[in-house]
Amino acid sequence: MSDATDLAERVRSGDLALHDLDDHADPATATEARRLVVARETDTDLDGVGATALDPADAVGTAVENMIGAIEIPLGVAGPLPVAGGATDDEHYLPIATTEGALVASVNRGCSILRAADGANARVTKRSMTRAPVFRVADVVEAEAVVSWVRENRDALRNAAEETTSHGELTEVTPYVVGDSVFLRFGYDTKDAMGMNMATIATRAASEVVEEQTTADLVALSGNLCTDKKPAAINAVEGRGRSVVADVTIPNEVVEDRLHATSDAIAEVNTRKNLVGSAKAGSLGFNAHAANVVAGVFLATGQDAAQVVEGANAITTVEAREDELYASVSLASLEVGTVGGGTKLPTQSAALSLLGVLGGGDPPGANADRLAEVIAAGALAGELSLLGALASRNLSSAHEELGR
Amino acid sequence: MSDATDLAERVRSGDLALHDLDDHADPATATEARRLVVARETDTDLDGVGATALDPADAVGTAVENMIGAIEIPLGVAGPLPVAGGATDDEHYLPIATTEGALVASVNRGCSILRAADGANARVTKRSMTRAPVFRVADVVEAEAVVSWVRENRDALRNAAEETTSHGELTEVTPYVVGDSVFLRFGYDTKDAMGMNMATIATRAASEVVEEQTTADLVALSGNLCTDKKPAAINAVEGRGRSVVADVTIPNEVVEDRLHATSDAIAEVNTRKNLVGSAKAGSLGFNAHAANVVAGVFLATGQDAAQVVEGANAITTVEAREDELYASVSLASLEVGTVGGGTKLPTQSAALSLLGVLGGGDPPGANADRLAEVIAAGALAGELSLLGALASRNLSSAHEELGR
Amino acid sequence: MSDATDLAERVRSGDLALHDLDDHADPATATEARRLVVARETDTDLDGVGATALDPADAVGTAVENMIGAIEIPLGVAGPLPVAGGATDDEHYLPIATTEGALVASVNRGCSILRAADGANARVTKRSMTRAPVFRVADVVEAEAVVSWVRENRDALRNAAEETTSHGELTEVTPYVVGDSVFLRFGYDTKDAMGMNMATIATRAASEVVEEQTTADLVALSGNLCTDKKPAAINAVEGRGRSVVADVTIPNEVVEDRLHATSDAIAEVNTRKNLVGSAKAGSLGFNAHAANVVAGVFLATGQDAAQVVEGANAITTVEAREDELYASVSLASLEVGTVGGGTKLPTQSAALSLLGVLGGGDPPGANADRLAEVIAAGALAGELSLLGALASRNLSSAHEELGR
Amino acid sequence: MSDATDLAERVRSGDLALHDLDDHADPATATEARRLVVARETDTDLDGVGATALDPADAVGTAVENMIGAIEIPLGVAGPLPVAGGATDDEHYLPIATTEGALVASVNRGCSILRAADGANARVTKRSMTRAPVFRVADVVEAEAVVSWVRENRDALRNAAEETTSHGELTEVTPYVVGDSVFLRFGYDTKDAMGMNMATIATRAASEVVEEQTTADLVALSGNLCTDKKPAAINAVEGRGRSVVADVTIPNEVVEDRLHATSDAIAEVNTRKNLVGSAKAGSLGFNAHAANVVAGVFLATGQDAAQVVEGANAITTVEAREDELYASVSLASLEVGTVGGGTKLPTQSAALSLLGVLGGGDPPGANADRLAEVIAAGALAGELSLLGALASRNLSSAHEELGR
Repeated sequence: MSDATDLAERVRSGDLALHDLDDHADPATATEARRLVVARETDTDLDGVGATALDPADAVGTAVENMIGAIEIPLGVAGPLPVAGGATDDEHYLPIATTEGALVASVNRGCSILRAADGANARVTKRSMTRAPVFRVADVVEAEAVVSWVRENRDALRNAAEETTSHGELTEVTPYVVGDSVFLRFGYDTKDAMGMNMATIATRAASEVVEEQTTADLVALSGNLCTDKKPAAINAVEGRGRSVVADVTIPNEVVEDRLHATSDAIAEVNTRKNLVGSAKAGSLGFNAHAANVVAGVFLATGQDAAQVVEGANAITTVEAREDELYASVSLASLEVGTVGGGTKLPTQSAALSLLGVLGGGDPPGANADRLAEVIAAGALAGELSLLGALASRNLSSAHEELGR
Repeated sequence: MSDATDLAERVRSGDLALHDLDDHADPATATEARRLVVARETDTDLDGVGATALDPADAVGTAVENMIGAIEIPLGVAGPLPVAGGATDDEHYLPIATTEGALVASVNRGCSILRAADGANARVTKRSMTRAPVFRVADVVEAEAVVSWVRENRDALRNAAEETTSHGELTEVTPYVVGDSVFLRFGYDTKDAMGMNMATIATRAASEVVEEQTTADLVALSGNLCTDKKPAAINAVEGRGRSVVADVTIPNEVVEDRLHATSDAIAEVNTRKNLVGSAKAGSLGFNAHAANVVAGVFLATGQDAAQVVEGANAITTVEAREDELYASVSLASLEVGTVGGGTKLPTQSAALSLLGVLGGGDPPGANADRLAEVIAAGALAGELSLLGALASRNLSSAHEELGR
Repeated sequence: MSDATDLAERVRSGDLALHDLDDHADPATATEARRLVVARETDTDLDGVGATALDPADAVGTAVENMIGAIEIPLGVAGPLPVAGGATDDEHYLPIATTEGALVASVNRGCSILRAADGANARVTKRSMTRAPVFRVADVVEAEAVVSWVRENRDALRNAAEETTSHGELTEVTPYVVGDSVFLRFGYDTKDAMGMNMATIATRAASEVVEEQTTADLVALSGNLCTDKKPAAINAVEGRGRSVVADVTIPNEVVEDRLHATSDAIAEVNTRKNLVGSAKAGSLGFNAHAANVVAGVFLATGQDAAQVVEGANAITTVEAREDELYASVSLASLEVGTVGGGTKLPTQSAALSLLGVLGGGDPPGANADRLAEVIAAGALAGELSLLGALASRNLSSAHEELGR
Repeated sequence: MSDATDLAERVRSGDLALHDLDDHADPATATEARRLVVARETDTDLDGVGATALDPADAVGTAVENMIGAIEIPLGVAGPLPVAGGATDDEHYLPIATTEGALVASVNRGCSILRAADGANARVTKRSMTRAPVFRVADVVEAEAVVSWVRENRDALRNAAEETTSHGELTEVTPYVVGDSVFLRFGYDTKDAMGMNMATIATRAASEVVEEQTTADLVALSGNLCTDKKPAAINAVEGRGRSVVADVTIPNEVVEDRLHATSDAIAEVNTRKNLVGSAKAGSLGFNAHAANVVAGVFLATGQDAAQVVEGANAITTVEAREDELYASVSLASLEVGTVGGGTKLPTQSAALSLLGVLGGGDPPGANADRLAEVIAAGALAGELSLLGALASRNLSSAHEELGR
């Protein structure tokens, strides 16, 4: 086994490929060697990305390939954030990893409002991680036959799918026909896992049954009706991962003291911006900046960053009532897990611990539910703060800055 | 100046608020004190997030508030990635920060295909960072008057907007009317900055002119027709940030050797999944997993993670020609910058250096153009790899794994 | 009972209101009187709208109010149109009412192609007329409770709903939560009726049960998740009325002889225009002009003209195979009936007779299925003709004209 | 010249094709002969569709082919409808052709509210009939070159386009790139014509210039970014035909007297149904039933029925103010004309006369503007009536029926 400098030399000489290094050294050495090669070839100082605390052995082969080091994202906390949820009933410090100044401060201000208002409610209303393969059939006659078969054989599909997983449950299979393509959207309760892998493996097994028992041929295990990492109405309407809602009722005095705006003004901003403006924009997101909170907590807790896309499918509502302000955020497709994937990395698992949701929950799924509810309440805090900042701009532009 | 333990005690005793710590200590001490408080209150071991290399002084007040440490995201490289762009004509190692195993390997495989095919083309076709305030008017009669005024006074708006910025240029102002709400979508060339702050400040100045010269009252400086961090057709259609396209033509032998599938099979997967499947899903993203590459490079290079949402507005096309495969990716709304925001953080600026795009470009805007073109080419690599994996699944499910 | 001139005079003198005329005369006289009043007040010659054959007694009170006569829309036929469907297996003359020159000719050309190709297949893959009331709840806690109650009490809702109808069957109730609003999307098999009225009445009864048994308060019997007469992804994804597909396989020689374009050229037009172009437009319709055929047959057969909106939610696919062209049209939400509403009017019922689908089918629903399948096949004919015209434009612009 | 029975016999014997009849007889005889053939082949009584008043000579070759008669749609009037518009300032009887009972009554009730409130405002805020051809280029390098050429040569395109028309003006050309497809969206002021034909012919001429001067090859004269007769965000955002808005302010007493509901209740229905419900449905239409009024007036006045699709892209807003209710409807893409197409048919031109907008306006475009404003005000009447009916349902379900 050679050391990093030697290995780097062997790559430069053409003796080894960059991605072969892990076969010739331990993760730390391979990572260092690769960093040396890339630094020299690009004439860049990469010492910083190598001086990070992450042990490559914790990441290589599970979280990343061709590793050269780590990126560090500043981590702040907002809170305490009081959440009366279906799975949690507690105050939480919300960990937010971000590079955007003012975001944590804005959410933090929102948390103080939630505290002054006796906390946010939150509920998970649906759990369904989906995978939707696309099959080729001869024509629409066959398409109808395949759809009929599927509707009559859900048990067979469930059995095949659930044999591949100890935790997951197949909860729905919905067929869609477009000409000679048949899409089957499989939905699973994946408990505390975000569940894409589980859903993919289970769906592959179920798809084999479809191929055996019908004339359909699998074209792609994902046919984009899943829909993963793309903005799609099917997720905004039917949900994906967790569908989760949070709300709060705030006395008018609290609104005015802390947001420097009236409840009427905040409701007006929400209507003209989040409802009418988003309508005019042809948007699937009727909110101010829910994605900011989703992204910040996703990065902190090891979620899949590309799934911030679906996390943005959120609707914010605000009603000015006689003595109080009602506000809610409804996230249709929040894909979260507390086991597997990036949740096992050191800093990320610490952030999950901070929230009290690391690992499998009791009952299974409870921890991911908790995480979803906390994110929803955090998004609500962020919405209130930014809406207040926009509404109060005549009083003080500083507040607007603070809002984000 | 007290040390961290003392400060933590003062917070616990109620003498100080968590967010006041930065006023009483240097960033490192304040961050440590805050971490101590939160660790104890939540009974969590947060040493890991504090043992990171990031100096709080580099982040507090610019990138984060209420800092307690940092999150580390594994960093890998894919490449070399050959890009013949309008702003770059070079090979690049693509830095990808991710927690999702197989992603870097998948993009890396795509890069090898692009190399075998003599590289990808890329072009930025539009630059326009937008901000769209919403104004209240008395009725549609006033709305029409305001719109007319705006159409006739673009110079006045441009002057007001551009006085606030040394680099930015106001390039378009488009009015939209919905009842008694008037939205003005301001578009700017913000050069090497992602430009949200620049656009916001300039738009505030222009909005003041609108308020002075017309009957319109500003309700919110962002009226969601911008659209920032929400999936929205207006971005997918008209673009936001950079609109950037990349493509490649690959000999059939290369396709078959490296993707273990025929060009016809890959084209079929693209049509049924990315075009027809996305159509049926009501999607704004007609691609396989462009967001994965966007997210990975955004995290590596200090972009705004929540803007991965807009980055997912991408269309992938594939054509099987007689002897070759044509593939393209078109990202409508990729919001990138090489100055400001998270680009200044140590590991992030190293990743930008690795790409040769750190800081302001020559001419201004060239570095952000380069970054956009490299991301587009990287997304193309990712699409090819995953489409190939899906198409070849009969040959080997291992390849499918590799695809993502 | 006075004659029309006298009645008109009483209206002019203020003694009677225009809409009261039906209480003072038979339909024909009231209609004439109203026409006299309006003609004189607007100084317009309305004799033409009164010289039509429609007997006001056949329309007043069921199809129109404040009647002044009729509008005549030219009626043409395209065909014969051979359709091998699930409910029909026959050749049909397709009645098309239109004011747009070239439309009937275009569809007629498409029919000749379908005949040369041994006919179109067609299948109804889903039947579900929907109505989605919106309820107010106190907060998200109550929202979850209501959703749970609905999931556990579908039988009670079905019983209440089905008591109001002799034919309709409640097939699904899907809850959606947005903050303190709960939407319940009720889906019905309404057999040969288009079914909006049936669905509305049944849903009102079921909503009363919801109000009695839960804390929810009905805000509006339609909450726009139905979605009626608006373009909406929920219909394009999940369907409304009939989801119906049609396809055909055409030998290349037939394509070239009759469309003066190659199969490759037609497939290219479909991909760039109907798939990629619609994708870029943020469209829910991935077709060339399906709405033209939907509108033409809807007008001819007494369907609800405003539901052409949902009829446009169609995806057209075309594949150039070795020796043949495959083409399909999939209409997600075609709302048709052969009983009730405008189907009872004289000329409209004649058009339904022409298709052999007037009145209730055997079994119930078969006639509306037939109508849906025929429209889908007609839309396919229209697509082929227009795609061919676009593809062949270099050969002859006359063909392009003919295409539409 | 033979008579109808003889001609019918010749068709039956195979001597003549159905669509050749117009070459062998005058329109009336050919139409009768065709009707005889079809009636006998389908064993249907088609006397009714032939007993209509429409002279085939007024329709054959311009409005329909393969004519067999006419369909009669009942025509009612709502009003008077007071409209203070930019092009009209008058009371109108709104002609509505419909087969749906209660629609005219509902709009009529809305008109009475508008009268009690001193009338509706209306304004056309944009005029742009669009046509968007799609071109094939070699790759994204060529795509960028074509886009640059277009941006620099708008005058050449305008000249080519405007040479084909005496009235139309090219007002915008917007390029969009997706891989190796370039779409150019041409927008025209087509004055009093709906303008699809004018836009198509002018765009063909401009496209020839593009083909001559660049490397682009035209694939289809319509590339679906137009977007014609499909639901599409590009129309909802940017408009097509006329973008037109109408609004009204109504004293609370009027609301309560005539709608039997409070302003608050009506505003709540609008928010939960038209804004939040449509948001959740993934809709481009944020209204109650604007398409009903659009369809009814389109059928009455000879507009293109399939363009009801775009007419449904409407947003309704309602605000409960202290003493009054504010309501507006904004139609983004209303495609109307007062010359050409179906406007020349006898009953349709009578309906246009009834509105005082038949033929070319003074200045050109004024009549189509007027028609657009009247339809918008009529849609507003319809929205108010239905929202009121939904809101008042506890008081009386009869009102709900009336609302539609």
